[in-house]
Amino acid sequence: MARWQGRDSRWRDLHDVPAPEVSRRRDEGQPRGAVLFDLDGTLIDSVYEHVLAWRDALRAESIDLPVWGIHRKVGMSGGLFARALLRETGAPVDAAQAERLQQRHEDAFSKYAHGVRPLPGARSLLLRLRELEVPWAIATSGRRLRAAAGVELLDLSGDEPLITHDEVQHAKPDPDLFLAAADALGVPMEDSLVVGDSIWDLLAARRARALGVGLLSGGYGREELERAGAFRVYEDPADLLDHLDEIGVRDA
Amino acid sequence: MARWQGRDSRWRDLHDVPAPEVSRRRDEGQPRGAVLFDLDGTLIDSVYEHVLAWRDALRAESIDLPVWGIHRKVGMSGGLFARALLRETGAPVDAAQAERLQQRHEDAFSKYAHGVRPLPGARSLLLRLRELEVPWAIATSGRRLRAAAGVELLDLSGDEPLITHDEVQHAKPDPDLFLAAADALGVPMEDSLVVGDSIWDLLAARRARALGVGLLSGGYGREELERAGAFRVYEDPADLLDHLDEIGVRDA
Repeated sequence: MARWQGRDSRWRDLHDVPAPEVSRRRDEGQPRGAVLFDLDGTLIDSVYEHVLAWRDALRAESIDLPVWGIHRKVGMSGGLFARALLRETGAPVDAAQAERLQQRHEDAFSKYAHGVRPLPGARSLLLRLRELEVPWAIATSGRRLRAAAGVELLDLSGDEPLITHDEVQHAKPDPDLFLAAADALGVPMEDSLVVGDSIWDLLAARRARALGVGLLSGGYGREELERAGAFRVYEDPADLLDHLDEIGVRDA
Repeated sequence: MARWQGRDSRWRDLHDVPAPEVSRRRDEGQPRGAVLFDLDGTLIDSVYEHVLAWRDALRAESIDLPVWGIHRKVGMSGGLFARALLRETGAPVDAAQAERLQQRHEDAFSKYAHGVRPLPGARSLLLRLRELEVPWAIATSGRRLRAAAGVELLDLSGDEPLITHDEVQHAKPDPDLFLAAADALGVPMEDSLVVGDSIWDLLAARRARALGVGLLSGGYGREELERAGAFRVYEDPADLLDHLDEIGVRDA
């Protein structure tokens, strides 16, 4: 029997506030929160393809931006992303152009998508959590069609809870995706953990009052993730799987 | 008249060691050192293409490694790189396979090379240094044929000093490329500055006893570069050009 040990609720007792339903006692043997995963760069190795697809999309609009700057914005909502990049060029931001950019990115990504693979340990990590009865979901800024194709690479049962930009109005760094994921699982957000590779995941985690765990597998530096609020950083899903006890998931 | 103000030679006086010829007095109006540039990720925006080309090369050898791990090794000597990656797989490292990997990378890069552009400010920075009579050279772990094609993108005069793996036995993180570049310019290495985007440039700079300046334009984090020994980090060549005074290059 395993449980996900979320925030300690003792401060509530100390302050004489009745503990809410969500803060179940440990000996009930139930997880109190969930693990909410980003998809690209966290479970599948697709960040560099997305980066070059955005580069191609921008060039098709005669916008030349250095690739590393694009990399630093991947993982944001596509709409925010397009606007942020256009803002950097100093040109006025036009909703039609932002929309067109997203479509061009989608088209360009199709050319790179054949190279995408699951990250090491991604499938094993998710299966292990299932075995330990720790609920989990995937929450991505991408659109459902593309996200579903990515999840398929993980070769799971096909009924994984998946929240995409299609289900919420605002994607990352807004917390909506993770809030919707926790809601879908029926777990308290503030006892949950967000696992992501980009600073947008970690900012969204903080805004949602969840703990954020960073993975280096999206190509960002460890310190970038720590500064964005990661309370712990691992290399990839395999490394996280090896250290589940550090984040409060235990066999018991 | 400008000069590159390298290390102060006063310690030599303090220790009663005769100042060598290279430590010319400032009022001679000559630069004492040079600025030695890496190429990929420092002057041209080619790192992400190299990363995916290595990924493709490895897959062609049935080696699946996550892309971010490849990114962290780009900029090394190709031979070291191949061996380092093969070592990660736990498989025995075979010289023939390392050689074959380099050829496969070269072939794969050809498919991505059309997307490569100069980084913002690269050409202006080099022209400005020339105007200020600060000597500079380009030193890259790549092979001459590929490097020359990259330098061509910068649209310079064509007689730039370029040191490649073809000219030295050991590429980065060995200091040989930068030592050969300083030698070609006839300037003292210890008064020179190395500008690069990867930790391999900065490690080579330290081993050569030069100051290292990091650029974020290769997609590494600021702290990664600082921890590898960068005494200053800028976004890209344009940002460095805006702050030349911080690294000791002045109009006077």
